[in-house]
Amino acid sequence: MPGNTFGQLFRVTTAGESHGAANVVIVDGCPAGVALEIEDLRAELVRRRPGQSHLVTQRREADEPEIVAGVFEGRTTGSSIAVLVRNTDARSRDYVDIKDKYRPGHADFTYDAKFGFRDYRGGGRASARETVARVIAGAIAKKLIHDAFGGTIVGYVVQVGDVHASVTEPAAVVIEQVETLPDGSPNIVRCPHPEAARAMVELIERVRKELDSVGGVAEVVATGVPAGLGEPVFDKLKADLGKALFSIPAVLGVEYGVGFAGAALRGSQNNDLFVPVGEQQGVRPRIATTTNRHGGMLGGISSGMPIVLRAAVKPTSSLPREQSTVTSEGEPTTMRTTGRHDPCLLPRFVPIAEAMVAIVLADHWLRWCAQSQGHPRL
Amino acid sequence: MPGNTFGQLFRVTTAGESHGAANVVIVDGCPAGVALEIEDLRAELVRRRPGQSHLVTQRREADEPEIVAGVFEGRTTGSSIAVLVRNTDARSRDYVDIKDKYRPGHADFTYDAKFGFRDYRGGGRASARETVARVIAGAIAKKLIHDAFGGTIVGYVVQVGDVHASVTEPAAVVIEQVETLPDGSPNIVRCPHPEAARAMVELIERVRKELDSVGGVAEVVATGVPAGLGEPVFDKLKADLGKALFSIPAVLGVEYGVGFAGAALRGSQNNDLFVPVGEQQGVRPRIATTTNRHGGMLGGISSGMPIVLRAAVKPTSSLPREQSTVTSEGEPTTMRTTGRHDPCLLPRFVPIAEAMVAIVLADHWLRWCAQSQGHPRL
Amino acid sequence: MPGNTFGQLFRVTTAGESHGAANVVIVDGCPAGVALEIEDLRAELVRRRPGQSHLVTQRREADEPEIVAGVFEGRTTGSSIAVLVRNTDARSRDYVDIKDKYRPGHADFTYDAKFGFRDYRGGGRASARETVARVIAGAIAKKLIHDAFGGTIVGYVVQVGDVHASVTEPAAVVIEQVETLPDGSPNIVRCPHPEAARAMVELIERVRKELDSVGGVAEVVATGVPAGLGEPVFDKLKADLGKALFSIPAVLGVEYGVGFAGAALRGSQNNDLFVPVGEQQGVRPRIATTTNRHGGMLGGISSGMPIVLRAAVKPTSSLPREQSTVTSEGEPTTMRTTGRHDPCLLPRFVPIAEAMVAIVLADHWLRWCAQSQGHPRL
Amino acid sequence: MPGNTFGQLFRVTTAGESHGAANVVIVDGCPAGVALEIEDLRAELVRRRPGQSHLVTQRREADEPEIVAGVFEGRTTGSSIAVLVRNTDARSRDYVDIKDKYRPGHADFTYDAKFGFRDYRGGGRASARETVARVIAGAIAKKLIHDAFGGTIVGYVVQVGDVHASVTEPAAVVIEQVETLPDGSPNIVRCPHPEAARAMVELIERVRKELDSVGGVAEVVATGVPAGLGEPVFDKLKADLGKALFSIPAVLGVEYGVGFAGAALRGSQNNDLFVPVGEQQGVRPRIATTTNRHGGMLGGISSGMPIVLRAAVKPTSSLPREQSTVTSEGEPTTMRTTGRHDPCLLPRFVPIAEAMVAIVLADHWLRWCAQSQGHPRL
Repeated sequence: MPGNTFGQLFRVTTAGESHGAANVVIVDGCPAGVALEIEDLRAELVRRRPGQSHLVTQRREADEPEIVAGVFEGRTTGSSIAVLVRNTDARSRDYVDIKDKYRPGHADFTYDAKFGFRDYRGGGRASARETVARVIAGAIAKKLIHDAFGGTIVGYVVQVGDVHASVTEPAAVVIEQVETLPDGSPNIVRCPHPEAARAMVELIERVRKELDSVGGVAEVVATGVPAGLGEPVFDKLKADLGKALFSIPAVLGVEYGVGFAGAALRGSQNNDLFVPVGEQQGVRPRIATTTNRHGGMLGGISSGMPIVLRAAVKPTSSLPREQSTVTSEGEPTTMRTTGRHDPCLLPRFVPIAEAMVAIVLADHWLRWCAQSQGHPRL
Repeated sequence: MPGNTFGQLFRVTTAGESHGAANVVIVDGCPAGVALEIEDLRAELVRRRPGQSHLVTQRREADEPEIVAGVFEGRTTGSSIAVLVRNTDARSRDYVDIKDKYRPGHADFTYDAKFGFRDYRGGGRASARETVARVIAGAIAKKLIHDAFGGTIVGYVVQVGDVHASVTEPAAVVIEQVETLPDGSPNIVRCPHPEAARAMVELIERVRKELDSVGGVAEVVATGVPAGLGEPVFDKLKADLGKALFSIPAVLGVEYGVGFAGAALRGSQNNDLFVPVGEQQGVRPRIATTTNRHGGMLGGISSGMPIVLRAAVKPTSSLPREQSTVTSEGEPTTMRTTGRHDPCLLPRFVPIAEAMVAIVLADHWLRWCAQSQGHPRL
Repeated sequence: MPGNTFGQLFRVTTAGESHGAANVVIVDGCPAGVALEIEDLRAELVRRRPGQSHLVTQRREADEPEIVAGVFEGRTTGSSIAVLVRNTDARSRDYVDIKDKYRPGHADFTYDAKFGFRDYRGGGRASARETVARVIAGAIAKKLIHDAFGGTIVGYVVQVGDVHASVTEPAAVVIEQVETLPDGSPNIVRCPHPEAARAMVELIERVRKELDSVGGVAEVVATGVPAGLGEPVFDKLKADLGKALFSIPAVLGVEYGVGFAGAALRGSQNNDLFVPVGEQQGVRPRIATTTNRHGGMLGGISSGMPIVLRAAVKPTSSLPREQSTVTSEGEPTTMRTTGRHDPCLLPRFVPIAEAMVAIVLADHWLRWCAQSQGHPRL
Repeated sequence: MPGNTFGQLFRVTTAGESHGAANVVIVDGCPAGVALEIEDLRAELVRRRPGQSHLVTQRREADEPEIVAGVFEGRTTGSSIAVLVRNTDARSRDYVDIKDKYRPGHADFTYDAKFGFRDYRGGGRASARETVARVIAGAIAKKLIHDAFGGTIVGYVVQVGDVHASVTEPAAVVIEQVETLPDGSPNIVRCPHPEAARAMVELIERVRKELDSVGGVAEVVATGVPAGLGEPVFDKLKADLGKALFSIPAVLGVEYGVGFAGAALRGSQNNDLFVPVGEQQGVRPRIATTTNRHGGMLGGISSGMPIVLRAAVKPTSSLPREQSTVTSEGEPTTMRTTGRHDPCLLPRFVPIAEAMVAIVLADHWLRWCAQSQGHPRL
């Protein structure tokens, strides 16, 4: 099976290159009757859009979506939904110079090794431009899981370079904090901790001036997810979420709950203990855990506690400075990337990561509906 | 699609509970003509086997595989291969006490939430017993990728609790180091750094005496992998490897190459530079990178450099001490796990992680054979 | 994706050769809580078993199933179910003669062309022996669809050679008629029309004496299927049923409803007209059609009317008489099949065809449960 | 898995309604480097186009394809290919009358039963308009199989109502005969037998005048297909071809080779005998069969002989005459279809059937490339 499809029952198929005519996404399996307006898509695309602040690439794309199939009178029909986004600011001339050179850190070399040639304009299919399709599919998935079980997904930046934000209560972060600073100005770095946000902005401005880039870490939290999502043994929820995040360009690592820090712990420190919640005479209580080191998943199945994931994102590989490399013939050369790039990927990474998490949850929700023959235990 | 199948073209389907009659694996898609003896399977199973040292669970399983289909006269036929491993030391009585209690850190609660009831004996399908099937499939995958392109996979432990091993040259570690100490004795903790190995053993012995458990980190390295494996955009090699490792019980995080440490780097520090290798008059040189912070994958496609992954494994949730929890009715109670458990999962985790990496590489190898119509660029 | 798996959500994976150790089936995706006893499997296997009458192959197989995973205390657990059937009467010596010869009408030549070599014993994987696994999976599927919506599947023979049975009311045929004649004796040819059944038996006895074989047609009817099963546009119910039946060895053609005869009709003759059924004051009536030329599917989706399918089955290719052929080196030769074979495949084809139809309906039932988010419109 | 995707490795995903904005197809898995021009797509679309003759629907669609992704400098890139066809002559007002009525023979009722509501304009997703996407994907598949192994696919009409054409040598029919009559005029009914073609045209004209429609049978022949395509046991080539044809709207039956007629034959009449072909001193001969009753597939795997399939197509359900039916509330009513319809589907069915056969062969070709690890035995 080729690799441009994601998901089993909520199934996303995409096509599109950085400098081609358009990006296309077909979402198949979305149940009938979900209210869907073009505005739902725009609201998410604007968070991913290039040129949204001085911290990100200055490519100017309207990113205007067109729903061409699968929606009738404002509701999904149960058929496949197709959405189109035309590329409008694709300056291919920026890339002629790199036609025969392999940019360090990019997929130029590996695509040539795989396919024998490549669409070199802006990275072609390997460009993060393809994530526009993910965000559209994610917007549909967010609608579905919100309607189905009140699921909400919020992502934010917790690290840029050596600047760390301390977010002690992930499930309490709301999207308003991520998008807007306390003073009402746009939170262009999408870190919910205002001081850290300011330090991150400064760091990104500095690395840009230094003709460099910087990495970071984003955290994504899903709340309202019922216990029971995820499939033994290979399609554990953590496994599909892990794949979803790793499939995004530039992701170097993924963890959930206590993550890598858990390697240093004892079992007696790490286990979250079950307790009854909402005890009432004559009513069976809900079961929860007092702590959430398990990040909302036990045995790879959602526990009803908030799902908490983190992804490490590498510093942008494209640098506006000279780097040594080789030509496609293997001859040493040098190059300088002259396209328009983000000095730090994190601010625009947030909506993409949210989208992928939403798609996985929508998919596993439908899988659970099947498995339970219409009686998921909400 | 239900979750007991992994892979697209090298396709592994498993069944089996901790205390059921047997574990079964069907490997579909293995090309015809691969030499396969029962000994190939035994050699890997013995590395995963319970009771192999005093550091691991003392459950006594022969783990004797029987090939019941798909192999004829010592070679795979191209049909589906089925292998069976009977469970022989399943003491169900150990588990009657926990029938109605939710063990902290385990899937008891989430399975009940999902399925409405569960096979409570030893965790049923959620038990790590199912990994016996993964190791068998991995043994077949290892044969295939070795025959096809000389691919070799070596895993080892780099951290247990606060004991870290320094492995500066991952691709140079050989399986002999992992399995045997310099003095010829078995390397029961599977850390290739002898001093760290000793400290890890001591730590595990200590936590066991303390009726506790401890987590750790394993590293898996694949060498000999040609450039070109992995599929844009969702089935990136890193994405499928990420899923493969996250699908293993107890894995909390996965990273490759520089991993989470990359979040703190600048692009100028992180980019690996391309260089020609093996230059010779009149011959086009091979292309490599001087460093391998990218862990052998660029744009999610293998680069020809060693693939380096790490997985964080949680401390065993089963503890032979009293812990508070709830019953399935939500009433507070306490429990003590009386089954036989590993105080640290890492030594036995290594062959399982290797198996999953092998399966992904075998799968992507076949996908590349399809994509290139029989002309993969080795 | 390799070809030994069938279905999306009710997912059947099989392995096993005619003369290997065992046949294995893993059914993944069966919901938790379905009552399943070994007797449910035996009851179907006995209908497919060789040696059940003098009309069929005299190979003696106990066909004793063993459930090795996925069932706990008499109910499915929601995990993958594995069932094993050992081969006990595999006389490989019968086949040494054909090791290097291509039997006419068999897959010997095509398997060699595909895989480079083959398990020549009894046809290996190409033997109809593999259908034992289908019948087991079908028995589980039958339980599921009966529990879920009262679905019932009955198959029977309507043609053997030039003997045709007239079955004017397919949905009225019950399994008792198919298995037993009015006089209480076994209906060994599985034709519900007693006179035709007698003529078919006579014909089969005659062709066997003539060292020949004969083809036929079976009809399969599914009743109680709610309107709404089937997925636009490629996974129409008729498309998946068509594939299911074509996947059975020896099937040459498949049709539903009016079938090929519809090619000669006018639209005004062929359209089934909708009418209200069960009209009652204040209650919305059920909608049905007065006739069922559409065979229970419109637009590839079930209409609530009985689903009626027919499959043409070729005369057994193995003949106990001399036929000319070639060796694997392409040299002309002759051969005579000395194994044990059915002079007519139809009697044993019936339970196999029923099983495949049941699997498709179980699969689409679960797909509908997903699509409707737990509110299929029964 | 939802139903708008077809194929495993050559993977076609479509979206689009009869009266929506556009139809979209994404072809994923097409190898890199296949020459592909817009003209290749147009050439096939023109054969399927409405309004091409007085025998077919007079809806006027330009059917102008736009390749928006996956092709660079005239060659496929190995990434997903996306093609868009805008709907330009969608007269929705024709359908307002049927919003609340169920057209006999159509999917109106079953879509409502499944999805709870429907895009009633022109049948929405159930309209044959979606086949425009199939024809595009088929055009790409035809290029691939022709480049890969010289595979050629020709379809034609062999029956309309009671008019039968006698085509004794299916593999000898060339597309020119199908498209053009001996006198150079267009063969608007696509029957290669000129006299039968004339009679078919007359019949179709007559049924149209009678405000009726008529069914028929098409035959599709694939030549040049190497022995070895098809996967045991469920994904037999005949099974996937069967599904492909059954997935097309209005198909009632599918058969290959001798088909249903084989049910009446003896094994001694039906078996095709193997013979060496092209014998030459010192060279191993090719193996063929003297006859081709097996329709090019044995054991579900291609034999190297021409693949011959037939599909029965029902008479168009839309009739411009009054028919009785019910409303969505179940009340009896009458209706007359006022949209523009084909009095006989067969002439336009031919390119659609060819497309589906091409897609299956492309898919199985790539699967064989994988299975054989790059050494398919051509």
